[in-house]
Amino acid sequence: MSKDQATRVAVIGAGQLGRMLALAGIPLGLEFSFLDPNANAPAAGLGRFVRGAFADPAALAALAAGADVLTYEFENIPVPPLEPFADQLAPSLQALASAQDRLAEKQLFELLGIPTAAYVPVEAAADLQAAAAIVGLPAVLKARRLGYDGRGQVFVESAPALAAAWDALGEVPAILEARIDFARELSLVAVAGAGEIKYYPLSENVHQDGILMTSVAPAPESNREAEARACLGALIAALNYRGVLTVEFFDTPAGLLANEMAPRVHNSGHWTIEGATTSQFENHLRAVLGWPLGDTSARGTAAMLNLLGEMPDPVSLLSLPGGHLHSYGKTARPGRKLGHYTVVASDAVAARERLAAARQLLGR
Amino acid sequence: MSKDQATRVAVIGAGQLGRMLALAGIPLGLEFSFLDPNANAPAAGLGRFVRGAFADPAALAALAAGADVLTYEFENIPVPPLEPFADQLAPSLQALASAQDRLAEKQLFELLGIPTAAYVPVEAAADLQAAAAIVGLPAVLKARRLGYDGRGQVFVESAPALAAAWDALGEVPAILEARIDFARELSLVAVAGAGEIKYYPLSENVHQDGILMTSVAPAPESNREAEARACLGALIAALNYRGVLTVEFFDTPAGLLANEMAPRVHNSGHWTIEGATTSQFENHLRAVLGWPLGDTSARGTAAMLNLLGEMPDPVSLLSLPGGHLHSYGKTARPGRKLGHYTVVASDAVAARERLAAARQLLGR
Repeated sequence: MSKDQATRVAVIGAGQLGRMLALAGIPLGLEFSFLDPNANAPAAGLGRFVRGAFADPAALAALAAGADVLTYEFENIPVPPLEPFADQLAPSLQALASAQDRLAEKQLFELLGIPTAAYVPVEAAADLQAAAAIVGLPAVLKARRLGYDGRGQVFVESAPALAAAWDALGEVPAILEARIDFARELSLVAVAGAGEIKYYPLSENVHQDGILMTSVAPAPESNREAEARACLGALIAALNYRGVLTVEFFDTPAGLLANEMAPRVHNSGHWTIEGATTSQFENHLRAVLGWPLGDTSARGTAAMLNLLGEMPDPVSLLSLPGGHLHSYGKTARPGRKLGHYTVVASDAVAARERLAAARQLLGR
Repeated sequence: MSKDQATRVAVIGAGQLGRMLALAGIPLGLEFSFLDPNANAPAAGLGRFVRGAFADPAALAALAAGADVLTYEFENIPVPPLEPFADQLAPSLQALASAQDRLAEKQLFELLGIPTAAYVPVEAAADLQAAAAIVGLPAVLKARRLGYDGRGQVFVESAPALAAAWDALGEVPAILEARIDFARELSLVAVAGAGEIKYYPLSENVHQDGILMTSVAPAPESNREAEARACLGALIAALNYRGVLTVEFFDTPAGLLANEMAPRVHNSGHWTIEGATTSQFENHLRAVLGWPLGDTSARGTAAMLNLLGEMPDPVSLLSLPGGHLHSYGKTARPGRKLGHYTVVASDAVAARERLAAARQLLGR
């Protein structure tokens, strides 16, 4: 494999996930191209860069030209402009379409027998009261499209608040979902290659204001692996899936409830860079290329902290022994994901202690 | 640390070592510039690229402009053009000067009480017989400058072969060195930061035709750590050293003999990417920037195989579980270092077995 015949991967989006894909793929000898409207996007310097809108057919064609595979780092991309590239695309268009619409996603879960919170589609303000009567209150009103990091969601405590929630969401097609009393949030990252599926250990996640704050993996005291794997296995089979797939779950006394899926590498899998034999980023690339998958075993217990809003002084953070800093090279903005920090220890207690030391140092 | 105020590292040379420095430094939020005469050099796409000769003052100035630190990925760079950049340079000019001249290097070892093979400088053909009488035969005639990967060395079995060796080397200033009967070759990678020194475990190395073929680390059954650390500690102190420093040793029944030093990240430390908590590449960057150093502990035992001459099919190599492929993106050429492959296992026996499986698969 000389430089001239390198394998080429095209990525829609050049954010931090694209950046970490490139950092994992360059050592494999892969060459990258990225499409993003932002010329300063985190991955822009790590491959051929096409500046353009995600839905622009000419930009997509320029991106995909000469690529062995076309993949994406986020799921809120219009589907029709991608149809001409369906054969080159992984994960599949069908996976993308299901994951970008909360109603389609929930219906797919239901079809496959994957337990979820009770939900009802809401198309108009007139639907709200009947929906609340079915799922009960408190509930969560979620826009069907363009939701991520807690956006497009409004908590509804009582019936009088329904109308305000509808307004707040922008009067867009939505679902009303029962609010779940869960013990904790877990996620499972799976990777589906050519005729093989591998699963990472479950990760235990803590969100703040709808944004992931920390992950600990393997999730301590978990007996949910089999349940979670069955869900992802069913989705992979149904969607003819190729690549990394992530599902977030609520862990409840009655079992796991699937909350949402992401047809891509996922923030709750960032711990795999140091905490697993093969990272989710490398395995996504190997999967979409049809290459053999890497070992997904954990190496100790990892704990990851998202760095939001402003990057800490690296000199201060790196004074703690053995931590791993990942800066995304983004401009600071309140609440924005700018990087993450991972520690790996022999067990969950030690990992959490070390993460707590970092949080104390950072005052967050 | 927003994008606009990123810390900038300038690197002389854009080969595989520069590439792995960038891959380690980008997650730390660092931005890179590289100087290389070859526009297709492995690291050329990972930062601002200055094409030029290593000794060109204008190219060096363009490279170093705006950089917080200037470092180098190989030691065969002329010293005088670097003198104006001495304050920005790490490791120091003094370290570079000592490491690029085998005579200066040996004299430094001697000055610091670091045991080496017996040697005698040879300035002219007339010196050869007297030198052989002192160091004994067989011996090795080594050019003082521009030696790496076995180049610039000729083995001399007997006195009549001395003249031919002198011719073969090109009649350049040299040293004649006693040929050592060693049990094995070991190397130690140390990193010197601002007021702190950390040592990786010793690596056991096997060379073929003067080129490193495999490293296993931590070196099994080694009781040489203290001896090796004392040598590197003395060099670091004497050279006012900042960055990664590597010394290759012969392990003999009488103790370690220092063979040569490299004032940079080193091929025998590539195993640290997966096999240590913090890689030699990340630690070199942290050191030259004056940042706190990362933990140099091993994670299990790693075994590394250099991939020379042509790259294997990644699909075949990655079908073995848990291995790590590193392609340098170079054009294939017989004997050229094109990449490396690392496995990590619980102990040296298991690591060697897994590396042997890879070599069998590759037929090398």
